[in-house]
Amino acid sequence: MSVTVGVHALVRRAHEERVLAILREHGTLSRAQIAARSGLSRTTLSEITGDLLGRGAIVKVTTDAHRRAGSGRPAELLALDPRSGQFLGVDLGHSRVRAVVTDAAHEIIASGVTPYAATTSLPARIRAGLALIDGLGREQGINLSALQGIGVGVTGPYPAGTARADVRAAFTETLRAPVIVDNNTRFAALAEAGMTDARDVLYIRLSAGIGGGLIVGGRLVEGAGGAAGEFGHVPAVPGGAPCRCGKRGCLETVAAIGPALAVAGVHSLDELAARRDEPGVAAALERIGDAVGRVLAAAALVLDPELIVIGGDLSRAAPVIVDRAAGVVAVERVPPGHDVAGAGRRDGGEPRPVVRAARLGDDDGARGAVAALYRQSPLLAGYSNLDGSAA
Amino acid sequence: MSVTVGVHALVRRAHEERVLAILREHGTLSRAQIAARSGLSRTTLSEITGDLLGRGAIVKVTTDAHRRAGSGRPAELLALDPRSGQFLGVDLGHSRVRAVVTDAAHEIIASGVTPYAATTSLPARIRAGLALIDGLGREQGINLSALQGIGVGVTGPYPAGTARADVRAAFTETLRAPVIVDNNTRFAALAEAGMTDARDVLYIRLSAGIGGGLIVGGRLVEGAGGAAGEFGHVPAVPGGAPCRCGKRGCLETVAAIGPALAVAGVHSLDELAARRDEPGVAAALERIGDAVGRVLAAAALVLDPELIVIGGDLSRAAPVIVDRAAGVVAVERVPPGHDVAGAGRRDGGEPRPVVRAARLGDDDGARGAVAALYRQSPLLAGYSNLDGSAA
Repeated sequence: MSVTVGVHALVRRAHEERVLAILREHGTLSRAQIAARSGLSRTTLSEITGDLLGRGAIVKVTTDAHRRAGSGRPAELLALDPRSGQFLGVDLGHSRVRAVVTDAAHEIIASGVTPYAATTSLPARIRAGLALIDGLGREQGINLSALQGIGVGVTGPYPAGTARADVRAAFTETLRAPVIVDNNTRFAALAEAGMTDARDVLYIRLSAGIGGGLIVGGRLVEGAGGAAGEFGHVPAVPGGAPCRCGKRGCLETVAAIGPALAVAGVHSLDELAARRDEPGVAAALERIGDAVGRVLAAAALVLDPELIVIGGDLSRAAPVIVDRAAGVVAVERVPPGHDVAGAGRRDGGEPRPVVRAARLGDDDGARGAVAALYRQSPLLAGYSNLDGSAA
Repeated sequence: MSVTVGVHALVRRAHEERVLAILREHGTLSRAQIAARSGLSRTTLSEITGDLLGRGAIVKVTTDAHRRAGSGRPAELLALDPRSGQFLGVDLGHSRVRAVVTDAAHEIIASGVTPYAATTSLPARIRAGLALIDGLGREQGINLSALQGIGVGVTGPYPAGTARADVRAAFTETLRAPVIVDNNTRFAALAEAGMTDARDVLYIRLSAGIGGGLIVGGRLVEGAGGAAGEFGHVPAVPGGAPCRCGKRGCLETVAAIGPALAVAGVHSLDELAARRDEPGVAAALERIGDAVGRVLAAAALVLDPELIVIGGDLSRAAPVIVDRAAGVVAVERVPPGHDVAGAGRRDGGEPRPVVRAARLGDDDGARGAVAALYRQSPLLAGYSNLDGSAA
C-alpha cells in the first residue's frame, strides 16, 4: 500500500509549508500580511488557509488590539495552533514503544513511553503503540485528527517484508495519515546527524543489539540490501563467542547490553552505572570500549568521516566506553600532515574524526522518524528506503 | 587557477553533446537532418557545427551518392572525425605515466605509457607525461589541438596542495584546455564502477601502495578530508610491521607489492606470477588474500555494497589473492535470510556482495580520468573533489 503524491500535491504542500513557516516566524498575521510575505495569490492563499484551519493546524485569533482604525470589524488574524499535532514519530523498540508529537513549528508538544517485554510479538507492540498515542491525545489534550504524517521506526536492519507492511497498515488505518517505516536505529542516526553540520557521520548504537547508520556526503545511506551502518556483525574478537547471526566474535557478542553485563559481573544497567568505577567493572568496560573503537577505527579509515557518534543505553550507562573508543580511533588515525602517498598532504586542521557521545536520549528513534517526515532534510536526498514514502 | 564555466557555456556544451550524440548514432547526416533530429534552430545549429568543424571534432563528407536529385550541387554531409582527440586522460602513477585519448564518440583512439623510476620528482613526471602526449599526437596522427578537457590522476589520497596546482598549470598551459586533477586510484574506481550497474561498490587497488575508492548510493565518495576509500592503513595484523604512515600492521605492510614479494621470497612481479603455484609462494599469497579479505569484509558489513572489485598489479599477478579475499568476505557475511534483529528479513536473492577482479588493466586510472571529464556520469553527482572542475 504505497502512498503516492502527485506534482500538484507537492506544490500544494510547498505552499502550505511556506505559509506555516511565515506564521512560525511572525506568530500572528492577517491574510493580507501572509499574502504579501508569501507571494501567493489571494485565491491560492484562501485555499491553503481554509485547509489548514479545517485540519486544525492553524487557528483564528481575534483581539481588540487589532481592531482596524475607523472600522467596527475586528481584523481576523491567523496563527499556528500550538495544540495541534502535525507529525507523529513512533519507535517500536526492543523493549518499549516511544512516541513524540510535533506541531507545525516542528516543536515537540507531547511524548510518552510504554515498556513491554523483549519477547512481545509485533502485533502486540503495534497495539501498545496505538494505545500510547491514544493516551497522548486524551491526557495531554493534543488534537491528532489532522496529522500530516507518521513515521514508525522498527527493529531489524532489513527493509521490506510483511512486518513493515503490517505496521504501516495498522497505523494508516487507525490514524488516517501517510505512514513511513524504517529501521529505528537509522532514524536515530538521522536525528543525531540533523543536530550537526557534518556531512560525513558514523553513528553506532550500543543497546540490546548493536545497530548504526551512515551519513556519507550529506546523505543517509541505505546499502545495496538496506543494511548499511550495521556495525553489530563486524568481527571484533577473532574466534570469539558465538553470535545469534551464526558467526563468532561479532561486535554484538562483546558490546551489546547482555554480554557487557555478563563480563562486568552485574545484573542490570542501573547496577552497571552504580558500580562502573569499581576496578573490575571499569576494566571490563574499557575492554568493551577498545573493541568498539577498533571496529569504528577501521570504518573511519575507509569512510573518512568528520564525526563519530556513539549512542544507546549501554554507552549512556558507561561513558568510559565512548572515551576508550575515541582513544583507539585517535591512535589508528593516519597522522595529520603525514604524506602517505607522495603527492598530497592532509590539510592541517583539527584531528579528524571527532568521536563523541550521542546528544539525544532514548527518544532519538522517535525524533528521527519525525525528522524523516519533514522531508526538508537534504540528508534524505536520494534515499529510497522509506517504505510507503510520500515523496 | 580554477576553471569556471557559465550557464551559457553549459547550455552550449549540452547542444554540442546533442549534435555529437546524433552523429555518433547515425554516422553521417546533412545539417537539415541534424536540425530535424536535434530540435535546434538552424541558427543555433549553424553556430554549433561551425565551432565543431573549426575545432576539428567533425568533418565535411561529400559524395556523389548523396547528390541531390535534380540539382548539380552535392549535399554537404557532416560526420565525426575519427582522428580528432576530444578528451585526454593521464595517470601520473607511481612508476609510469599512462595516457589515453578518446574521440567525440568516447572511443579510445590513442594510448601510450612511459615508465619512470618511483623516485622521479613531480616536475619530471609532468614532463614525461607531456612528452608522451606529444608523441601520441605526432606518431599516431591524432589532432590534439581541439581537446575539450584533460583529466589527470595523481598519487596520494589527499586533495588540494601545491602539487595538484602545479599539475593543472602545466597541462593547461601546454595543451590549452580545462584540466581536472584527482587521485588516480579514485579515477580507477570510477572507471570500474562505470562498467557495472551497481550503485554500491568498494574498489581496492593492490600495487606499490594500496588505495581504493567507494561508490555509495550511486555516487563517488570523497570523505570529510578527501581520503574515503583509503584501505591501505586499516589495521590488518595486530602489532605487525611498521608502516610508513607511522602505525604498525597496516594492510599496506602486508598486501602492497614490496611486502608481498618479500614474504613470497621472489624479486619481481614477473617472478611472482611465474612461481605462484609453488607451495611456499602459494601459501604466502593465500595469507595476503586472507588479510585483504578481512579488511574488505569489515568494510562490507558496514557499507553493504553490491560489488567489491580488486585491482592493481599485485592482484593481476596473483589472482589467488582475489579468490581468498572473496572466500573471507563470504564467510563474514551475515547469512542471507537470517533474521538478525527480529522485525526484518534480508530478501532471498544472490549472496551479496560479489567479489571479483578488476576488468580494466593498468590504464584504469587514465580511463577514469576521461570518464570524469564526460561529466555525464551520475556517479559524480555531488562530488566536489575534482580540482579545477569545469562543472
